[in-house]
Amino acid sequence: MTQLGELKARLAELADLNNIGHLLEWDQNTMMPPSGAQSRSEALATLGRISHDLLISDDTGRLLEGAAAELDGAAPDSDDARALAVTRRRYDKARRVPADLVAEMARAGALGYEAWVEARRRSDFAAFVPYLERNLELAHRYVGCFDGFDCAYDVLLDNFEPGMKTAQVAALFAELRTELQPLIEGVRERADRVDASCLHGRFPTDRQRRLVAEALELMGFSSESWRMDDTVHPFASNIGAGDTRITTRWDEGYFASALYGAMHECGHGLYEAGIAEELKRTPLGHGESLSLHESQSRLWENMVGRSRAFSGVLAPRISELFDTNIDPETLYRAVNRVQPSLIRVEADEATYGLHIVLRFEFEQDLIEGRLAVAELPEAWNARMSDYLGIDVPDDARGVLQDVHWSAGMLGYFPTYALGNLVAGQLWERADAEIEDLDGRIAAGELGPLREWLRERVHRHGAKFEAGQLLQRVTGAQISVGPFIAYLKRKLSDVYGL
Amino acid sequence: MTQLGELKARLAELADLNNIGHLLEWDQNTMMPPSGAQSRSEALATLGRISHDLLISDDTGRLLEGAAAELDGAAPDSDDARALAVTRRRYDKARRVPADLVAEMARAGALGYEAWVEARRRSDFAAFVPYLERNLELAHRYVGCFDGFDCAYDVLLDNFEPGMKTAQVAALFAELRTELQPLIEGVRERADRVDASCLHGRFPTDRQRRLVAEALELMGFSSESWRMDDTVHPFASNIGAGDTRITTRWDEGYFASALYGAMHECGHGLYEAGIAEELKRTPLGHGESLSLHESQSRLWENMVGRSRAFSGVLAPRISELFDTNIDPETLYRAVNRVQPSLIRVEADEATYGLHIVLRFEFEQDLIEGRLAVAELPEAWNARMSDYLGIDVPDDARGVLQDVHWSAGMLGYFPTYALGNLVAGQLWERADAEIEDLDGRIAAGELGPLREWLRERVHRHGAKFEAGQLLQRVTGAQISVGPFIAYLKRKLSDVYGL
Repeated sequence: MTQLGELKARLAELADLNNIGHLLEWDQNTMMPPSGAQSRSEALATLGRISHDLLISDDTGRLLEGAAAELDGAAPDSDDARALAVTRRRYDKARRVPADLVAEMARAGALGYEAWVEARRRSDFAAFVPYLERNLELAHRYVGCFDGFDCAYDVLLDNFEPGMKTAQVAALFAELRTELQPLIEGVRERADRVDASCLHGRFPTDRQRRLVAEALELMGFSSESWRMDDTVHPFASNIGAGDTRITTRWDEGYFASALYGAMHECGHGLYEAGIAEELKRTPLGHGESLSLHESQSRLWENMVGRSRAFSGVLAPRISELFDTNIDPETLYRAVNRVQPSLIRVEADEATYGLHIVLRFEFEQDLIEGRLAVAELPEAWNARMSDYLGIDVPDDARGVLQDVHWSAGMLGYFPTYALGNLVAGQLWERADAEIEDLDGRIAAGELGPLREWLRERVHRHGAKFEAGQLLQRVTGAQISVGPFIAYLKRKLSDVYGL
Repeated sequence: MTQLGELKARLAELADLNNIGHLLEWDQNTMMPPSGAQSRSEALATLGRISHDLLISDDTGRLLEGAAAELDGAAPDSDDARALAVTRRRYDKARRVPADLVAEMARAGALGYEAWVEARRRSDFAAFVPYLERNLELAHRYVGCFDGFDCAYDVLLDNFEPGMKTAQVAALFAELRTELQPLIEGVRERADRVDASCLHGRFPTDRQRRLVAEALELMGFSSESWRMDDTVHPFASNIGAGDTRITTRWDEGYFASALYGAMHECGHGLYEAGIAEELKRTPLGHGESLSLHESQSRLWENMVGRSRAFSGVLAPRISELFDTNIDPETLYRAVNRVQPSLIRVEADEATYGLHIVLRFEFEQDLIEGRLAVAELPEAWNARMSDYLGIDVPDDARGVLQDVHWSAGMLGYFPTYALGNLVAGQLWERADAEIEDLDGRIAAGELGPLREWLRERVHRHGAKFEAGQLLQRVTGAQISVGPFIAYLKRKLSDVYGL
């Protein structure tokens, strides 16, 4: 057997272990009885340790060397060359971080999460301070394992968005904020033009299930290779080839939460399900760039789901199922209402970006030592007032609202807003390349868009970084323009901006 | 760290991997979308390989030596000494079998299973012959890896019933057959004394779910640490401490299938759930003797579930839920009807044993070369006529009915009937030690029995072989008497024997 062959066999095992981890996490969040938690965390820790040891072993290093020599001269964009490059990057990163630091970070993240749940419940930021300080201290130690970066934040960001630099994000976000703020200001003056009351009422869950099932089926959900289950914090997961799982939650008083949430998760699922067969069980067999992933969920949730065209598909079914009368235009306007609000995950398409810009700025301030953890609530509240014009009543609905920092995930937030930008660029391109995209969507035919995305984006899996992929598909790097243009069109439409 | 400590850490990892395997299999049989099958089999193969490698590594051998030296002088029945002994046995066995034979057996088992599904569907034994011959050939190669046994079958039996010898089973089964045959003959002459028609009708699944949930709750099922799901072939599984899962299937025309089937699986679940905390994540943390396991499921299904006392609890609820009128005595008699039949899994308590004796005899004939695979159907049909007095209309309902041989599981069947014998002994003892056991059950109070079993049996996990445990609890080895005495009492009651 060649060394490449031997390496690929090992990477297939790693891919299996990765899939097994996905199943354990899916089960934990959908099926597991509560008292299985301790045992599950032990199983996940063991699985993680075994995967990690397999990845960083000297054998893997030797095989990487040998395989690289064998591949010398292969096209750098071939599947094998890219799988090797991606593995090399993961291997080098994993080798740099001592096992005890990895364990320490995992433990601090678990403790931080516990403390955060309680601190948020009591809206008591002071109780959370030592845990966030500890996570920051460990983040510094983590950054200290690397060299050759422009700033510490680059090292953290790279874990969620491979290849992306802080400076690039900062430039994009500066432009994004400059564009979003006047848009939001303009809407604020016209707030009375949109009435979203049709979204609220009594919507029995079993009827919502039918509505959601129909929408997902149009997107490509099939019970042959998908499942949908209930959970508290919705997510999507791919357990392996032919096994994609999404989750949602139900609010009997507000159907939009389950409907657009499920379309969002189905967008993630379509990405994973669309990855080429030949990449499965390789290091390229799952999406890796979180901005690319988020671009898919956002594109389906917002650009398709909240479009005027698809509102024409949804409104009659909503009216039938809930025995009410919502016309497409009313639905379209209601689900595109813009209103500055406290909670990121409930934010509309326009204000969402500012929630992210603010978090990105604070993460850099914290990691660079420009802001002490204890000063965070005051700074948070001031900036929420500055960016979104709203007052934060308590820390539970302010600085304590998100889980990420408690678990030590610093550098994650930017990918959400980058996902919107990428979605804007892909949407612009899809619209140019797919004949009568709008008409197709209005007819409930989502197949052409799905196939376009599969061909251009999904099938490549983790083969390309977000920037490389966008270059291939759109001929441009990540940019703010297309997303803002899309948003302006919609808000002009809805608010007469 | 001591070598014992190091070994225990490694065994905890093995226990985690074992639990992970349980989750993968549970999911495959309850949740997984159909097209995930290929990917799941790859994940299971990788997991199995990693577990196996970890168990048989030279490191494990070195730690076993070192730990044994450190433990020298410890009580042989201490948890550590037993964990070491059990691991030593598993290690020695696993080291003797070459990896390529293990892989070959797994592949032949998978192919055999596929062929069996199709052969059974078409009732075409000839199509199945080469697969069973292959499994037998591999079984011989497997047996050839060992020495120091009395007969080849000992080696196979030991995989399902550690420590048990073929000669012991043969003696027990000879006695069992001698006792059962006249009992069954006696019932045959009084067949018209029992009318089971009350079990058949229209029983909506949602009402059955309530009935089953109530029965299981009396047994100790709690949603805090248990789940129940639907499946095709019911089973029980323990995914780790605090996470026990059982499954059932529903027949709208016959409620007894789900009800007593669920009590059976809950019996298995109670065993696993009752294993002591300190044995979790050790080699003793799951039941290993299949006869002990089956004794628990049978005891709850038959000795409790089908008792006159519990029929008094069930009948009023059945009457209410299905809007009918079944009195306790009618239910009691109906669910204890004895009638020789074709299919093992549908057999009653009395005839069941003969289905097993027959399989045990044929397994020995096959492995000893006294019977060719091609001769099996004729021999099967003749013996079914001899033992149970019934004609086998086709191989699908005869020699092809069970999955075990197709997957290479030779030596498994005896444990089912041994389970009945063990249940008989435990039941006799429980009745002697628990005050007014019958009255408690009649009052729906199943806690005293469950706690008695937990204390005497469950908490020990895999610490003792079946014979050792029975010696501790009842002062006797496995025997036929108590089960037959129990059966005679019941059949006298029901049939006036």
